[in-house]
Amino acid sequence: MKQKILIAGGDMRQIYCAKRLSEKYDTSVAGFSEDCLGGLKSADLQGFPELDAVVLPVLPLDGEGNLNTPCSGKKIQIPTLVRLLKPNGIVLAGRPDSRLADLCDREIIDYMAREELNLLNAIPTAEGAVQIALEELPVTLSGLPVLVVGCGRIGTALVGILRGFGADVTVAVRSSRSAAKARIFGAKSCPTDAMQTDFGLVFNTAPAMIFGEDLLKKFHRDTLFIDLASKPGGIDPEAAANHGIKAIWALGLPGKTAPVTAGEIIADTVSGILEERGGEADG
Amino acid sequence: MKQKILIAGGDMRQIYCAKRLSEKYDTSVAGFSEDCLGGLKSADLQGFPELDAVVLPVLPLDGEGNLNTPCSGKKIQIPTLVRLLKPNGIVLAGRPDSRLADLCDREIIDYMAREELNLLNAIPTAEGAVQIALEELPVTLSGLPVLVVGCGRIGTALVGILRGFGADVTVAVRSSRSAAKARIFGAKSCPTDAMQTDFGLVFNTAPAMIFGEDLLKKFHRDTLFIDLASKPGGIDPEAAANHGIKAIWALGLPGKTAPVTAGEIIADTVSGILEERGGEADG
Amino acid sequence: MKQKILIAGGDMRQIYCAKRLSEKYDTSVAGFSEDCLGGLKSADLQGFPELDAVVLPVLPLDGEGNLNTPCSGKKIQIPTLVRLLKPNGIVLAGRPDSRLADLCDREIIDYMAREELNLLNAIPTAEGAVQIALEELPVTLSGLPVLVVGCGRIGTALVGILRGFGADVTVAVRSSRSAAKARIFGAKSCPTDAMQTDFGLVFNTAPAMIFGEDLLKKFHRDTLFIDLASKPGGIDPEAAANHGIKAIWALGLPGKTAPVTAGEIIADTVSGILEERGGEADG
Amino acid sequence: MKQKILIAGGDMRQIYCAKRLSEKYDTSVAGFSEDCLGGLKSADLQGFPELDAVVLPVLPLDGEGNLNTPCSGKKIQIPTLVRLLKPNGIVLAGRPDSRLADLCDREIIDYMAREELNLLNAIPTAEGAVQIALEELPVTLSGLPVLVVGCGRIGTALVGILRGFGADVTVAVRSSRSAAKARIFGAKSCPTDAMQTDFGLVFNTAPAMIFGEDLLKKFHRDTLFIDLASKPGGIDPEAAANHGIKAIWALGLPGKTAPVTAGEIIADTVSGILEERGGEADG
Repeated sequence: MKQKILIAGGDMRQIYCAKRLSEKYDTSVAGFSEDCLGGLKSADLQGFPELDAVVLPVLPLDGEGNLNTPCSGKKIQIPTLVRLLKPNGIVLAGRPDSRLADLCDREIIDYMAREELNLLNAIPTAEGAVQIALEELPVTLSGLPVLVVGCGRIGTALVGILRGFGADVTVAVRSSRSAAKARIFGAKSCPTDAMQTDFGLVFNTAPAMIFGEDLLKKFHRDTLFIDLASKPGGIDPEAAANHGIKAIWALGLPGKTAPVTAGEIIADTVSGILEERGGEADG
Repeated sequence: MKQKILIAGGDMRQIYCAKRLSEKYDTSVAGFSEDCLGGLKSADLQGFPELDAVVLPVLPLDGEGNLNTPCSGKKIQIPTLVRLLKPNGIVLAGRPDSRLADLCDREIIDYMAREELNLLNAIPTAEGAVQIALEELPVTLSGLPVLVVGCGRIGTALVGILRGFGADVTVAVRSSRSAAKARIFGAKSCPTDAMQTDFGLVFNTAPAMIFGEDLLKKFHRDTLFIDLASKPGGIDPEAAANHGIKAIWALGLPGKTAPVTAGEIIADTVSGILEERGGEADG
Repeated sequence: MKQKILIAGGDMRQIYCAKRLSEKYDTSVAGFSEDCLGGLKSADLQGFPELDAVVLPVLPLDGEGNLNTPCSGKKIQIPTLVRLLKPNGIVLAGRPDSRLADLCDREIIDYMAREELNLLNAIPTAEGAVQIALEELPVTLSGLPVLVVGCGRIGTALVGILRGFGADVTVAVRSSRSAAKARIFGAKSCPTDAMQTDFGLVFNTAPAMIFGEDLLKKFHRDTLFIDLASKPGGIDPEAAANHGIKAIWALGLPGKTAPVTAGEIIADTVSGILEERGGEADG
Repeated sequence: MKQKILIAGGDMRQIYCAKRLSEKYDTSVAGFSEDCLGGLKSADLQGFPELDAVVLPVLPLDGEGNLNTPCSGKKIQIPTLVRLLKPNGIVLAGRPDSRLADLCDREIIDYMAREELNLLNAIPTAEGAVQIALEELPVTLSGLPVLVVGCGRIGTALVGILRGFGADVTVAVRSSRSAAKARIFGAKSCPTDAMQTDFGLVFNTAPAMIFGEDLLKKFHRDTLFIDLASKPGGIDPEAAANHGIKAIWALGLPGKTAPVTAGEIIADTVSGILEERGGEADG
């Protein structure tokens, strides 16, 4: 028999997530207005405790500690959802905080902490970053000298896309190990602490303040900087402004530029978690 | 001694064109407001007839038969410019019509008819088309089945970019010769008159009405169509609308999405024309 | 009813050609020893004149004017084959000379002159050339500065493969048109008459004597030259030897390095020719 | 002042290694016949103990426990070399065994255990493997369905090269994490334990016996298998032979197909080790 799961709250990504999960699980949703549902089944919040899992969105709670429901006018309280879980049912959420733990006496699994989710998110993040570059730059990527700082998941995805455009890509790295990785992906590299500065476009993926006043002032004013590092970011926005350099801090890209893919990535990750646990349960 | 040329009228592309030409020629401009100039020299329209060439924009005339000057409030008449040419000086323009020929008793060279310009424009056109796809699609290009109709300049440029994204690219072709070309560029092909229809994205580059009612209705509603063919285009907009299919007709892309590159391409083409003629003159 | 065709003479390529054609036509072979046949039907050379086409190999005649049959000890005379053709049956051959015309009073079609064959042959030629480079060079292609002279079919195929290896590819071109083409394929270019010389590997695809004494002596001795131009070739072998430079003239690559593919390309070309003629016949 | 190092024993790779190191260090060599030296300085084996490091080859000892010197007729004993080291001088070797530790009362560093060496070796290994495929296959890589088992260093390098050839690449992976990685590199993936078998070419990079009798017999006889896994390998050679399948076990590729690059990779790794230690010494 199919497992029963409830997708509760969040934006349209969670609807796409629910659609994908409904191919495999007995899936219902809560916290969405009627016109978002597109054929998905609305959950009965007064029903029996028969769910195997409740899937909450990234940033699951609003300011008051209720479910985060930007696509619905109604408030839903977390205990209402937890009550619907079977005794061994679990809660899955993206970046849950301690408030959520206080509200459910259940195991909470943070799907945003899973490596496969972060690997898969690298692709829509890189595509979204390239979209921004195409929108902002008055020149083509073909032939453009581009610097990618960092050779992790997002840096790797960027290199592949940018090479397809015929850009002249250099990867800034901190170790000979990363220089070797860049080489395997077909890109040149330079040391982060001795980088050249004649680039038309710079993507930062490294979670460190690399581009401060002293470094930024060596770049040409026309250089576009796109920062993909999570807070506090790797480019000093004030220093950039002082030098007339455009720096865009692009956060939450997968959700913004490819919401369907972003929702499906959450679905596939949730699916993987449920299968692993199913495997354990069988054993 | 450097040749003297005047760039007259047009949008910012012509300013970028003038900047590039000023690296090589004694260049002045006319038909732009002061704040567009960025260091370029304003022409003296009352000066001596000493110019080697006058460069007019793409679509050189406005509705009244004056110079097309969207970046200036002032009107300039074509004879004013022609008077500044030396006896063997020439007029270069993009897609000149018969009105222009009537206004100048000079040789007029259409730089838009030059093959190297059209080859080079294929790159910003393809990049602009991919930008539109990234903006419109709620899914990633990575892994997406994409159809490119036509294997000419723009189709070739698209295939290279899309393969870098990891898209699953098929090229629709009319001949075994074009199928062989697609293979050289690393793409699969199918015959245009027997194409499959399970694609998430379709680019048309062929100058023929290919996507009419009968063909469009075989595609999924979520398929995004981007038409890059010049008038009359290759996708029937009404038929697309009838079937709830989004079809975007993207014209004039190089100028819109990469104006600096578009201007520099005009400059390089003008430069090539002047050099060829200089060569002839020497001989 | 299926057309009847006979594949006569040539090396193993013609056997692979026959296998491919037998999927579509009533196919028999002649001029091969038993152990080459692999299930193909031997032709009855004393049979009725019922063939639609006879397919002869590339270089169809031996020194004595008989069929070129390197895979058989027996001699076959051309009239013996022609006698088997229906009144409107045709002869297809690769690079036929005037002797063949004298021997058959039939239309002879040179399949090697077909553009799709030459386009398709560019792929095995480029792969074979890269195989030679991998065998000869004591360094990796990754990161190697490589020059490709010419931006036609083979040059284009080479650029795609070499970029996948992470080589640093420059294309030497004669016109701004070809420079633009190279750019579309994602490669840098330089003018053929003003090329740099610091390359580790040079492929020549241009049918002109480009690398004579004066140019060769500017290259490093370790540079490997691979000449893909047909006779008389583009690299002076004596001048190369004088300067201690290794130059390999790689002719007939598709047949040598990818005989199955080479045979299938001939089959597909023959198939295209027969279909076109069938179309005419119908009309 | 430059550090003094001695490169002792091994094949031509160590000579290329010495050449590269001589750009940075006071370098001498031992264990090579005169005609191999190419300008390198021969070490004085009776000299003072003034060396900072002795670099021994991969598999440093011969069967009798002397230095492995395939490029020289003379025997050299390890203590002779160790005596030349300064008190804090070190020994570097590739895959040293316990015999070496018994012969030198010094710290021995295994440069083959360094991650950057293994990353960099992935490139010549992948290029060498592709060279074998080009040599063995009678068909082109363009359009060929190819399976790469494993998505580590070598698998990643293979995917990049094969995509450049226009091959249709699938990566067999064991985890959703590796499937996500393959996607980032632009390739499709399938689970290793449920792989399809219609491939023309299979590269194994996984260090596990994957291709046993039961799996191999599902593949076509024309499929070429190339095993890049170190001992005991991932393809059962007897089972392959039983089914008439060609399986090539390609070991030691970097040294065989790209000895200069292989030597330079050792040099760069040795250089990195010496710099790290120099850094420590300074601090």
